Amino acid sequence: MGLGNDMMSHRLLSRMAVNDEHGENSAYFDGWKAYDRNPFHPTHNPHGVLQMGLAENQLCFDLIEDWMRNHPEASICTPEGLHHFRDVAIFQDYHGLPEFRKGVANFMSKVRGGRVKFDEERVVMSGGATGANEVIMFCLADPGDAFLIPTPYYPAYARDLCWRTGVRIIPVHCHRSNNFQITKEALDTAYKKAQEDNLNVKGLLITNPSNPLGTTLDRDTMKSLVTFINQKNIHLVCDEIYAATVFSTPSFVSVSEIVQDMEFCNRDLIHIVYSLSKDMGFPGFRVGIVYSYNDTVVNSARKMSSFGLVSSQTQHMLAAMLSDDDFVDNFLAESSIRLAKRHSLFTEGLEKMGITCLPSNAGLFCWMNLRSLLREQTVEGEMQLWRVIVNEVKLNISPGSSFNCSEAGWYRVCFANMDDETVKVALRRIQAFVGKEAEKGMNVVKRRQCIKGLGISFSSSKRFDESCVMSPHSPIAHSPLVKVT
Amino acid sequence: MGLGNDMMSHRLLSRMAVNDEHGENSAYFDGWKAYDRNPFHPTHNPHGVLQMGLAENQLCFDLIEDWMRNHPEASICTPEGLHHFRDVAIFQDYHGLPEFRKGVANFMSKVRGGRVKFDEERVVMSGGATGANEVIMFCLADPGDAFLIPTPYYPAYARDLCWRTGVRIIPVHCHRSNNFQITKEALDTAYKKAQEDNLNVKGLLITNPSNPLGTTLDRDTMKSLVTFINQKNIHLVCDEIYAATVFSTPSFVSVSEIVQDMEFCNRDLIHIVYSLSKDMGFPGFRVGIVYSYNDTVVNSARKMSSFGLVSSQTQHMLAAMLSDDDFVDNFLAESSIRLAKRHSLFTEGLEKMGITCLPSNAGLFCWMNLRSLLREQTVEGEMQLWRVIVNEVKLNISPGSSFNCSEAGWYRVCFANMDDETVKVALRRIQAFVGKEAEKGMNVVKRRQCIKGLGISFSSSKRFDESCVMSPHSPIAHSPLVKVT
Repeated sequence: MGLGNDMMSHRLLSRMAVNDEHGENSAYFDGWKAYDRNPFHPTHNPHGVLQMGLAENQLCFDLIEDWMRNHPEASICTPEGLHHFRDVAIFQDYHGLPEFRKGVANFMSKVRGGRVKFDEERVVMSGGATGANEVIMFCLADPGDAFLIPTPYYPAYARDLCWRTGVRIIPVHCHRSNNFQITKEALDTAYKKAQEDNLNVKGLLITNPSNPLGTTLDRDTMKSLVTFINQKNIHLVCDEIYAATVFSTPSFVSVSEIVQDMEFCNRDLIHIVYSLSKDMGFPGFRVGIVYSYNDTVVNSARKMSSFGLVSSQTQHMLAAMLSDDDFVDNFLAESSIRLAKRHSLFTEGLEKMGITCLPSNAGLFCWMNLRSLLREQTVEGEMQLWRVIVNEVKLNISPGSSFNCSEAGWYRVCFANMDDETVKVALRRIQAFVGKEAEKGMNVVKRRQCIKGLGISFSSSKRFDESCVMSPHSPIAHSPLVKVT
Repeated sequence: MGLGNDMMSHRLLSRMAVNDEHGENSAYFDGWKAYDRNPFHPTHNPHGVLQMGLAENQLCFDLIEDWMRNHPEASICTPEGLHHFRDVAIFQDYHGLPEFRKGVANFMSKVRGGRVKFDEERVVMSGGATGANEVIMFCLADPGDAFLIPTPYYPAYARDLCWRTGVRIIPVHCHRSNNFQITKEALDTAYKKAQEDNLNVKGLLITNPSNPLGTTLDRDTMKSLVTFINQKNIHLVCDEIYAATVFSTPSFVSVSEIVQDMEFCNRDLIHIVYSLSKDMGFPGFRVGIVYSYNDTVVNSARKMSSFGLVSSQTQHMLAAMLSDDDFVDNFLAESSIRLAKRHSLFTEGLEKMGITCLPSNAGLFCWMNLRSLLREQTVEGEMQLWRVIVNEVKLNISPGSSFNCSEAGWYRVCFANMDDETVKVALRRIQAFVGKEAEKGMNVVKRRQCIKGLGISFSSSKRFDESCVMSPHSPIAHSPLVKVT
């Protein structure tokens, strides 16, 4: 009877409403749920799960709060700005506030070292990068059409790019042997395979800086990608939402620079997805941007932005903030310094335990290599270790398989959504775990580690317990250290 | 060559990006563009176009500004609220802030006279009613499926409900003879026609209170609609975004009351679309709500809300405002009084000139009958008159045909997006025009009207000039009297 009802119910709704193509049934989101059930707090819940699965940037809020304190006129809710309340509340033009678009274009230019200018007339709003990625797919591809995406890639792309659009992802497999760089050969192989499968390839989508790798694409690689898509006459979508998280050399090369410099490039094929969720740490404000060099796409995406406009209250405030050159310059410089410091703190801590990460220069995470800890070099081996780390070490990190990585044993670990003390707690937990493994003769590190006083224990019998039941809770997690009250 | 390039370009993009199914090529939007090109201002541009095509509610901003002034702690940008900035900026859980959902549920209940309670767990966010309407379609219907919608209906439904979802609208034709009420016969006819056309009817969508009619559905009609959809086992989507604009008897009967009272109703079929754009006058804040009684739809819509979440800054502020019972009670009562007064001012002014409107008790507009001014009783006759009104009388009103009205000669005229003085300017312009028509012997009104000092003139030779070229500008207009600076 249950089945009958289910089937009845299914026919009543759309296929989309009842299929699993939203991609939430992934370890990436399950880890967030584990954190949600038992969130760490330094005093209230010191044995709780540490949230290292959330690429959030909390390192510079003091600078932002200072700016807000000194610019009450930027808000419509202060005595200084209240006279704008009415005008802003009713503003619904889908072009956005002119000064907001100008501010965004200014910020995008500064993030790219001022080497390129952005035309505010091409700045199209959408609901976060989530919305921006979907909008650009709706503009470029029909249902069934395909996009090439180098692996490893962001787990929620299945939802953002495919779920409602019907677009398909073709992975371009990248490998550890060359530090997961995108090669011409890998692109050609993927493209050829798609053709053999009768798929209509409409473009290539890259994340630069990469999530989860934390690396940037060099100028030559960028040029070869632009050449590739021009030769095939397909689109290049560059998701550059981590552009301002570059904290070390080599510096970031945006596709906008390549387009500016290359002699032969069909600009109608080039599109940028941007956001303030990572670079400024404002995921709650839902500022997503589609920046296209193609006029038809700009017009069409703008019409679609009706479905995901940025709140005019937020536009108004950010217009002032992003147009303040002194603030932006200082923010970007300081953010980079703090990210570099945090990256060092974390990766050097790992190195002391014999754990390496892929060398990186950007991002709010590192790509940690735990291959030597796997019982077997398979996705299942990776998932077994992941369950131990989430359930016993009580760290929510994200397994490489959820990023469609071609090799088992890699994990993304976020480090910018917490304070230094919490990073140290995480390092102590990892150290204790690694020590325990070593003790068991797994020979990861030679010396024994002290686990005393860490408040965590490892039950061998439970180690590979797969009965971990995840709650049907939100896959978009709260921040680990804060609760909105 | 141009054609060749165009075709090349078209194949590069999606069908959606290059088709016209966004519905913007409508007189409804063209009128906005006419306003945009030459906006009226009482002192700077007194001969400009008056914006009466925008259903905006500006009558109670003084109450809202007072509340803001007295509640600086509700904002994250004030000294009193700044300590929440960080927590709010990073909050991205797609369930929304619990206190926001609670506030919305509280407000929705109060708008419906407290006769029903709403479960905050069923409150799903989306980007305005625009986003909410699209999300509910994505949940309920597959591409090619159809929804019945009584006419006249909101012109942008083509965009909101159909453009990206592939859903089709089947008009249920309602007529002047019974004041455009929805009858069982009209529903049956439309349903039968759809079946003959091999369309899979997934539901019925109603706007209650109606846009553009400004009327509410009585309890018996609501019950018969609920019975109809239960018999057919199809969905009922109630767009209730004008719920708080009811300013006169009969009082508003929400589908939520019907569901509560009726013995036999499959609640899985009932869904409400809500928003704060009309009832509170906050279209810029993009608060759209899907409230479904179907658990699967709630879960699926919540996943989709990732594409159109409300800015956490806005959620945080509104959570406090909508949970303030005294404020909400006073706001709703006062808003109703002011709307009634404005409605009287405008419709009584029209009556003095012999122009009638459909009797109404809700909305931010009235449904004006200008049939006696038409040269011919056709859509073309209606559009000819409309062009004169927009281009010469310089009033942007919206022709009935853009609402898919089954009878020519009706126009929607918005009256709540301006001050009393501007309404009087509009009335004087209409009076002058009607007088001119009478003078020409068209016998609309018997007496001559004085047009002196109004700053408008009517050139007979230009009267039916159809060369009016519209700019490719925003169809989502600025407010008529304010400019964000």
